[in-house]
Amino acid sequence: MSSVTARAIIYNAYGEPAETLKCHAYKIDVASLKPDDVVVETVACPINPSDINQIQGIYPSRPPISVDSLPELKSPAAVCGNEGLFKIIATGSNVSNFKKGDWCIPADVNFGSWCTHKRGLDRDFIKVPQTISVNQAATISVNPSSAYQMLTCFEELKPGDWFIQNGANSQVGRAAIQIGKKLGLNSLNIVRNRDDIDKLVADLTALGATKVITEDDNGSKEFGKTIKSWLDGKQIKLGMNCVGGSSVTGLARKLGPDATLLTYGGMSMKPVILPTSLFIFKNLTAKGFWITGNIKRIPNSRVDTIKAVLKMIEDGDLAEPTYNETKAKVSDLTDKKLLDIFTAGLANSKKGKQLILFE
Amino acid sequence: MSSVTARAIIYNAYGEPAETLKCHAYKIDVASLKPDDVVVETVACPINPSDINQIQGIYPSRPPISVDSLPELKSPAAVCGNEGLFKIIATGSNVSNFKKGDWCIPADVNFGSWCTHKRGLDRDFIKVPQTISVNQAATISVNPSSAYQMLTCFEELKPGDWFIQNGANSQVGRAAIQIGKKLGLNSLNIVRNRDDIDKLVADLTALGATKVITEDDNGSKEFGKTIKSWLDGKQIKLGMNCVGGSSVTGLARKLGPDATLLTYGGMSMKPVILPTSLFIFKNLTAKGFWITGNIKRIPNSRVDTIKAVLKMIEDGDLAEPTYNETKAKVSDLTDKKLLDIFTAGLANSKKGKQLILFE
Repeated sequence: MSSVTARAIIYNAYGEPAETLKCHAYKIDVASLKPDDVVVETVACPINPSDINQIQGIYPSRPPISVDSLPELKSPAAVCGNEGLFKIIATGSNVSNFKKGDWCIPADVNFGSWCTHKRGLDRDFIKVPQTISVNQAATISVNPSSAYQMLTCFEELKPGDWFIQNGANSQVGRAAIQIGKKLGLNSLNIVRNRDDIDKLVADLTALGATKVITEDDNGSKEFGKTIKSWLDGKQIKLGMNCVGGSSVTGLARKLGPDATLLTYGGMSMKPVILPTSLFIFKNLTAKGFWITGNIKRIPNSRVDTIKAVLKMIEDGDLAEPTYNETKAKVSDLTDKKLLDIFTAGLANSKKGKQLILFE
Repeated sequence: MSSVTARAIIYNAYGEPAETLKCHAYKIDVASLKPDDVVVETVACPINPSDINQIQGIYPSRPPISVDSLPELKSPAAVCGNEGLFKIIATGSNVSNFKKGDWCIPADVNFGSWCTHKRGLDRDFIKVPQTISVNQAATISVNPSSAYQMLTCFEELKPGDWFIQNGANSQVGRAAIQIGKKLGLNSLNIVRNRDDIDKLVADLTALGATKVITEDDNGSKEFGKTIKSWLDGKQIKLGMNCVGGSSVTGLARKLGPDATLLTYGGMSMKPVILPTSLFIFKNLTAKGFWITGNIKRIPNSRVDTIKAVLKMIEDGDLAEPTYNETKAKVSDLTDKKLLDIFTAGLANSKKGKQLILFE
């Protein structure tokens, strides 16, 4: 193998994915690597909401649109995607931390993961063990890492302490339930009401949720008494909000004095609405959480977090995350086929989390 | 003078002031003081919104309703009021830090200031110089002290830095303008639009406001460009909100990255409404400010703050605050007269700040 044909999903200008995305094919010369180079092939990559917002140009952290993004580009472009699992297929003469066949994930954000192969430096990657599943390895750095950092970087929570979150059935929410349980924390989890609510409550409880309530319960003053009885004199120290609107108002009312409320999403498209009295008389601190910002502020926190979460996955503390999987047979790909796979994945991503598996 | 007849405005149970307030008359035996006792007569006391909320029972920090609140009480009661200026009229044998005629203010909250005279311990009072005005001395510990602490306890503001506030024509707002100017800070001040807006802008500018804008400007996306040109590349680091609703939304949008927003009031009766993206992508921290809570958290901060503000008043940095003044002639008082004075002051307090002067 002297060279491989690689393909990547790129864009030359910001816009709606269906209009702006292209597939770019290029050769990677595997035979003549620089000493620190590695070549990887992609095992799997997810489609995250932030990937889409990057393409639209509305996400503050974005890869450069540059002719240097990939070989053989005729005009400046950026490669889509941030997360993924990769396998080392070639190493430069100086590379000692990887060998062929090793699994790895990008060491930093804005990696450009929606591709079949990529050449990079060895320090662009973090090794991950093959004792964990492909799905877990490919999606470790956003959702479970966000949950871990929110639970550990803001309030000093001790075993027995409580946190509360809305959107508890999201990937971050489910990770927080499990990581919280591993840390000995109690979780009060708010989900939207639905026909099969009993099934969802059983599901989240099996993951380790202490209590699961609906948004109706969350908005009910009367239901506050029930929650008080669960807390048994304890105060909720941390809240995690990815919904906004009346959901975060109800969530915040359940926080104890001097608590921290972290907003990391706004699924309702409504702003964060908080009663004045919670700020003045309960000394509420409301902050945001954005993993890209947090890892910039706290040195080494990305790698440290990934290592801590990897350990939990290896120990069996985190259940396999559920994705809608699409398989891409690399030997059979054309530009159009790869573009179609990602275009379909993007279209389906409102219905559920998408993962593209290369084989 | 072996004893004085004192009167105080009290309540035996929480409720609306017009229904629950009474006047209690009692004797203070000036001739037989304990060694650390002092007796004071009241020079002036304001009616603050928090005084009213205490009477209603909805303010978290409240004086005890106790038979020990005053002499000769027949049933448990609390004395209204927190702030005031007092004059020493008698001292116990051990008192060295005060002499007859000295001015003083309460050392702590929940003092019960709506009275003609009071007996207390010397350590219950802080001496204030008679080089400042009665109005300034009687109202130093809430409004200017709140402004000072908000400007100094949360963000490290340096000369040339900017802060933004709504309700800028409130007593706290006016104090913040002047204290900010003394500290070398630039202020962006939001006020409600009104017919004589030019006069108000001139008034606040004379106090030291760098820029004054209306709530209409605050809500205008277009006007943002004008503000940007004023800032000349600087970022606003601190926001102070006493309004809530759309006012705080507009205010928060003008804050720079990593800024702090302090909510100390909610005059619009609407909650604090903040865009999700400010939390996630601009790392906004929203906190509350309550002077009673802040002085509990930061040891000595009440006395330190009062000293710092006193120095500014003595140096002429803070203009005389405007109050609607009512005079109470002590030699001529009856229970009914004193109650009528405070009842009228409470009724008028929605129209403007009230100060009761004793003579």
